Amino acid sequence: MNNYPSTLLEQAVNEMSSLPGIGKKTALRLVLHLLKREPIEVANFSQSFTRLRNEIKYCTECCNIADQLVCNICSDKNRDRSLICIVEDIRDVLAIENTQQFHGLYHILGGIISPMDGIGPSDLNIDQLIARASSGEVKEVIMALSATMEGDTTNFYLFRKLSDFAIKISTLSRGVAVGDELAYADEITLGRSILNRTLFENNFQK
Amino acid sequence: MNNYPSTLLEQAVNEMSSLPGIGKKTALRLVLHLLKREPIEVANFSQSFTRLRNEIKYCTECCNIADQLVCNICSDKNRDRSLICIVEDIRDVLAIENTQQFHGLYHILGGIISPMDGIGPSDLNIDQLIARASSGEVKEVIMALSATMEGDTTNFYLFRKLSDFAIKISTLSRGVAVGDELAYADEITLGRSILNRTLFENNFQK
Repeated sequence: MNNYPSTLLEQAVNEMSSLPGIGKKTALRLVLHLLKREPIEVANFSQSFTRLRNEIKYCTECCNIADQLVCNICSDKNRDRSLICIVEDIRDVLAIENTQQFHGLYHILGGIISPMDGIGPSDLNIDQLIARASSGEVKEVIMALSATMEGDTTNFYLFRKLSDFAIKISTLSRGVAVGDELAYADEITLGRSILNRTLFENNFQK
Repeated sequence: MNNYPSTLLEQAVNEMSSLPGIGKKTALRLVLHLLKREPIEVANFSQSFTRLRNEIKYCTECCNIADQLVCNICSDKNRDRSLICIVEDIRDVLAIENTQQFHGLYHILGGIISPMDGIGPSDLNIDQLIARASSGEVKEVIMALSATMEGDTTNFYLFRKLSDFAIKISTLSRGVAVGDELAYADEITLGRSILNRTLFENNFQK
């Protein structure tokens, strides 16, 4: 798959396949699809990425991607400003927003501590989090990071940083996922779900 | 998944998910990946598609994608100019080139006849093919279209158009694919592979 008849095509395929999870064959399929579209459509397609990259702002409060200085969640007067949910990136915000169960604010770390990938605490938006915590407005912080080794490391680091303030620190409950069969649950999850068992009626809370 | 905090992000996700096989979640993942790259990299990424779309040429002989007026296959003096392989698009050219078993020229139709998709003979590069066939240089034409209803329709249409000329018309052999188990082969393929059986030693030709 390396004898492209055109260097323009080759460059486009190389760029497309630089995206994570897109191989050369898929990239070629996508690029050929673009070739069949109108030039103005392709121009809009391309422009959307350069515009996003060049004009994007980050919310000065929660570090989320935003069009203005303060994102639409932080500027929403109806949300509980005493409750902050700490997440890794914007995809987690969208996932939690979709549940419609959370009405506080977010704080986007921009990653998790991962020495293997060379990501330390200084690479994350932790200073901004401390600033928010020290303002006195925040009463509770919910740790909503991935249930992985790196997530737990970050949780522990943040717990130590935040424990200086009079703030309740909670974390997402761990347990058997809705729809999971017990026989296939791993022993750590199942063990924790027994230790942290909840009252039966709580599972039917709206 | 529709409460994006930024319209720039939303536009980029919409554009990315306009590609075939890319859903909204994958698009968001890819766009967030682009956001983490350097602006110059994103500019190069975007530019490669607009340049391809605006500057691409099609080979005047075989209708393949090319940088010059004549593609590098058609201008290759070492290739057999009396043999033309008819394919649907450039991906088929790359697939056949990878086999290193074909040393003739190609003719790219740009699609196959598909009334369901509104693609008729006039939408394909058939006139150019007839022009090549009538030049007298071509001795054999190999039909290498998909083994589908549409492919067979196109084969038959081309066969009638080309039978006016003193040209041998052949088609790719159909049969059990290398690595396939007989028990899983469909009856039409298996039936044809019995009717069109080849000499044992031919399967080991280099």
